[in-house]
This record gives sequence, C-alpha cells and structure tokens, in this order.
Amino acid sequence: MDHVTADDSQRRPLVELSEEDILAQLLPLLNGPGGANGGRHERVVVGPGDDAAVLHNPGDVILTTDTMVRGRDWRDDWSSARDVAAKLVVQNLADVAAMGGIPTGLLLTIAADPSIDLAWVLEFGAGIGEASRAAHTSVLGGDLSSAPSGTVVVSITATGTLAGLAPVLRSGARAGDLVAVCGTLGTSAAGLELLLAGEDPDQAGAVLIAAHRRPTSPLSEGPRAARAGATAMIDISDGLLRDAARIASASGVQLDLSESAILREAQALVPAVTDAVARECVLTGGEEHSLLACMPRRVHRELGSAWRVIGQVVKGSGVSIDGAVSAPRGWDHFLAE
Amino acid sequence: MDHVTADDSQRRPLVELSEEDILAQLLPLLNGPGGANGGRHERVVVGPGDDAAVLHNPGDVILTTDTMVRGRDWRDDWSSARDVAAKLVVQNLADVAAMGGIPTGLLLTIAADPSIDLAWVLEFGAGIGEASRAAHTSVLGGDLSSAPSGTVVVSITATGTLAGLAPVLRSGARAGDLVAVCGTLGTSAAGLELLLAGEDPDQAGAVLIAAHRRPTSPLSEGPRAARAGATAMIDISDGLLRDAARIASASGVQLDLSESAILREAQALVPAVTDAVARECVLTGGEEHSLLACMPRRVHRELGSAWRVIGQVVKGSGVSIDGAVSAPRGWDHFLAE
Repeated sequence: MDHVTADDSQRRPLVELSEEDILAQLLPLLNGPGGANGGRHERVVVGPGDDAAVLHNPGDVILTTDTMVRGRDWRDDWSSARDVAAKLVVQNLADVAAMGGIPTGLLLTIAADPSIDLAWVLEFGAGIGEASRAAHTSVLGGDLSSAPSGTVVVSITATGTLAGLAPVLRSGARAGDLVAVCGTLGTSAAGLELLLAGEDPDQAGAVLIAAHRRPTSPLSEGPRAARAGATAMIDISDGLLRDAARIASASGVQLDLSESAILREAQALVPAVTDAVARECVLTGGEEHSLLACMPRRVHRELGSAWRVIGQVVKGSGVSIDGAVSAPRGWDHFLAE
Repeated sequence: MDHVTADDSQRRPLVELSEEDILAQLLPLLNGPGGANGGRHERVVVGPGDDAAVLHNPGDVILTTDTMVRGRDWRDDWSSARDVAAKLVVQNLADVAAMGGIPTGLLLTIAADPSIDLAWVLEFGAGIGEASRAAHTSVLGGDLSSAPSGTVVVSITATGTLAGLAPVLRSGARAGDLVAVCGTLGTSAAGLELLLAGEDPDQAGAVLIAAHRRPTSPLSEGPRAARAGATAMIDISDGLLRDAARIASASGVQLDLSESAILREAQALVPAVTDAVARECVLTGGEEHSLLACMPRRVHRELGSAWRVIGQVVKGSGVSIDGAVSAPRGWDHFLAE
C-alpha cells in the first residue's frame, strides 16, 4: 500500500466506476487497514462512512481549510498525485501549527473530471494517507464529486487541538519583540524557478525542486513556540513580505527585517539560482510553509537556534528592511500579474 | 445587505481585484456587521482572518463537508447565486442534523474562474450569510481560490455539537423499529422534472421548482429525534431507496417500505407531475435533505406526526416495498447513466 503502482485495473477513467466502487478502493489507502479509528487515533469517535464524522476534542477546536486547483496550484507534468497530496496536507497542517495547535483530523474533498484515471486518485489517496500518518493524524471523512472536463480541485479541512493553550494570533506582536523564522525560506520559489528554466538541475537544484513539489513545515515547532510564549505567528504561504505585513497590520506594529539576515538566508539558495533571484525568493516566495513568529527575547532564548532571528518589531506600520519600508509583494490568487 | 443588487462597481470580473479586495467585500456579507463573533455566537473564539478559526466546542465535535460544482450540481440559468448558497448550507447542515447534532460553524471555500463577476460572488456570500443566520450559525473561515475557465466549485465544511448525546449512526436500526421520514419526499426531483420540461409552471409546480432550487431540511428534528431515542438516521441526499439501503447495509437489517405510504407521499406531487413520475421522484429523488430515521414505536409516539411512518425494519438485507426487494436506485456522482 505504500507503493501503489497503477496496474491495468486502475487505468480506467472514473466514469466507468460508481462512487461506492471508487470509495471502496480509496478509503483503505487514506487510513490503512485500521481505519481512522485504528491505532493511536482514539480521538476519532465516528470515522468515514456515516453522514458526518465525530471527533472527541475536549476544549477549543482549531479549524482551517485550503484548496489546490490543477493548472493553478500544480501542473501534472511537474507534480505527481503523491506530491500534490503531500503539499495539500502540509499547507493545511501548517495553519494549525501557526495557531500553536496539534492536528487531530482531516476532511478530504476531491472534485474531478470523470475522465481522469482511477490511478491518479488512488496515488493521491495513498499520498494523503502517508502525509497524515507522518503528522500523527487521520482522515475523518470527505466528499467525492465530479467536475467539468479538465478540472481537478482537491481540498482539505484540518482540525486541531490547542491542548489548553490560548491560540497564537497574528495580532499579538509588540514593539521590542524579535522576528524569527523556523524552517527554510525561498526554497519552494527557487525550485519553481528551476522548473520554469527547464534545465537539468544539479544536486542542490534538485533539493530546491523537491521543496517546491513537497514543501515541509516544522509542525511541532508551532505548539512549542506557543508554549514558550510567542506573541504572534503565521505560516509563510504567500511570501515573507506579504505574511509579515499581515502580522504587522493585525498587531498595529512594524516588522523591521534585517538586510544582513535576508542575505544570509538567500545564500542558502546560491548558486542554484543567482544572488538576485535568491533574495527575491526569500522575500516573496510562497508555498514555503515555514513558521514566522514574533517573541520577546527571553522566549527566543528558550526556543534556541531552530528559530533564526531575521528582524525586530518596532513602532509603526508595515514591513521594512533596515528601516526602509517595503511594499508588500507576493502571491495573489486573482489579481492579474 | 439583505438585498444585494449588482451595481456597476460589482460588474467586474474577479481578475480585476486582489484577493484582499474581494474578501473585504465578501466577509461582511457572510456574517453581518457583528462578524462571526457578533451576536449569539459565543462559541467563536477566533473567526475569519487568522491562519485558522478557533471554536469553543466542549465534548464531541461533528464534522462534515459537501461540495457543489457548476454545471454538475447547478445550472446558472436555473439557479441564482443565492439559490446555490442556500442549497449548499442546507445539504451540509442536514448531515449535522442526521447525526443528531446542532450546527456550530461553517468553513466556506470558493474556487472560481477569475472571469466571473464579483456580483455573483457577493450574491453567493449574502446567501450563505442568510442561510447560516437562519440556522443560528456563522462562517468561521474559508478559502478563496482561482480556477480554470468556466469552473466554479463551492464547498462547505460544517461543524456541530452533540450537546452530550451519542451520535445517531446509520448502523443502529433493529428489526421491529418503524421507518419514518420528517420533511418532504420527491419535491426537489419533481421540480427538476418541471425545469427540464421547460413549460410555465402553475402554482403547485412553482412550489416544486422552488424546492429544487432551495431545498429545506427539518434541521431541529434531527437532535429532537436523537434525544427521543431514534436508532438510525440519515438525510435523503441521493434518494429514498439509496439512502434507506445505506441504513439497511450499515445496520444489517432490511427496511421494508409500505407501498400505500409511498403512494400517499407521491400524491403530494400530483398533478404537477404524473402519478408515475411522482412515485419515481419519491423513491429516487435526491437533494431532498429530509430526515429518514428508524425508531421503536414508543419513540415515534413521542415524536408525533412530524415524523410519518413509511415502513418497518425487518430481518434481512436491502430495501423492499411490501416485501418485494428493490434494487437501490438514485444519484451517483460518477457512473455514466
């Protein structure tokens, strides 16, 4: 099951199968033989198969949803179904982590052109299963729907628990806090640049392309930063400048980034990409899903070197670099470029 | 805000606006001036605008998700954006009700062709707001995404609370129980027949067409039946025969429907449609979102006439009508007709 290979029986378009036939093959891949209730998921009261799922979630429940659209969020020639699955799980769970939460469950929606192969759906399902097990969570339910020709839309709603802590919002940053990042910066955007360039990558380039296909997020560092006392947190989904500006706006402060820190971060991407491209990837690269947080100095001392200081919170508004205010740039879903 | 009319400023395609511009106009329509935290929604700890929402939900949380796709689940010439919104909310909340739950929140996803008008999105948002307020719940968050040309996919994840009760599953029906329905049967399918026929409907026909455009569900009867002791429950989304078969299969019993009860139900649709069409609509009509439940006789006495007895649970398997086993028929998302 960990290595689903399309055999002839999977080289069939969905339209030849009933919804129940598809689910009968998909569900075991999502949660393994034990189902959502199997193994360590004692929180799952009712798993897939009834009108709704039921989750035992004492206290407050975190809820977030994120969608990926074929041709917008991925290209089939660059990303396998398993890559798409891994990215979809990570971008949802990074939102849970950025509140300081621990994942407790996923709902999965697939709306697909009935002419696509069952094999794609099953490989996608196996990828969702792998990624959710890696994050110690499981699929509680979902929806399967047909869509117009060429369209594939996949969506997850993730739930999480705060385990008694208060959520870490975007609005808690205070002048005097440090700005710190946990996880990589710019690797997904740099990998996309290399894919667009279409050249054979060297080893460093291959690592960046892998980061674009399957970004990772330091999920356990979210609740760790919450416990330590981080004042504001966000995951970097639309680029450092744009996401930092969201904290600045919600908190009524200015986030002043350090040019030397940005250059240091950019060096990790060179020479796979040029210095100029590397700096732009660090500042505006989306889909990175690293965690950006603000925190008093003593909190940073407790968290240690997994969190790299890249700036400080000052009075003012917006985002600046060494004091020079920068316009927010980054990914926007609708606005024409 | 209850009567959004497209003015010139809304006759713009989404591609001319940034995601933040769209959200700035959409969010007030979803939850009114008080926001998700306003008014009676004391359960909402964090509403839209952060990485994730946080819901205060002591005990077990119900989770369900349902998606609608333009051209598959609705046609723009037959259904307004407000109709689509009302149907999407009802079909999700009916799943919560069918577990015996009370809704606590919604996450909303819109994946739309950037060339569609802002006006459609805003009317859809106003419809979501109306429908969720009518059900005493609110929008906690969501996702807005661009999609390929011609594609509009809208999706809701609904949460609910069981208020200390056990969930009513599909698997609890026992031989000797009555089979009862609360809400209409076949009206949505009969309304669709009239739309397909394309004739000007009389008043009775107009009521059926309205039921197709905006089905209603007796949401509060779900938790009421749960408290009284219903043993199994489902909402009728894919047709009476198909959904009854799901209870039969999960419970390991046979649901024997009464031909006279079916004829009585069908009479409510005549003469807007013929006797034969009416019977077929009652048996196989989907998107009705009425509640189908099994319950001991004493539970039915307590619930009263809002629940109409249409059969009984016997030993065996599948669904029968006056003892004659019927193949499950109804809506399937993928299988070619």
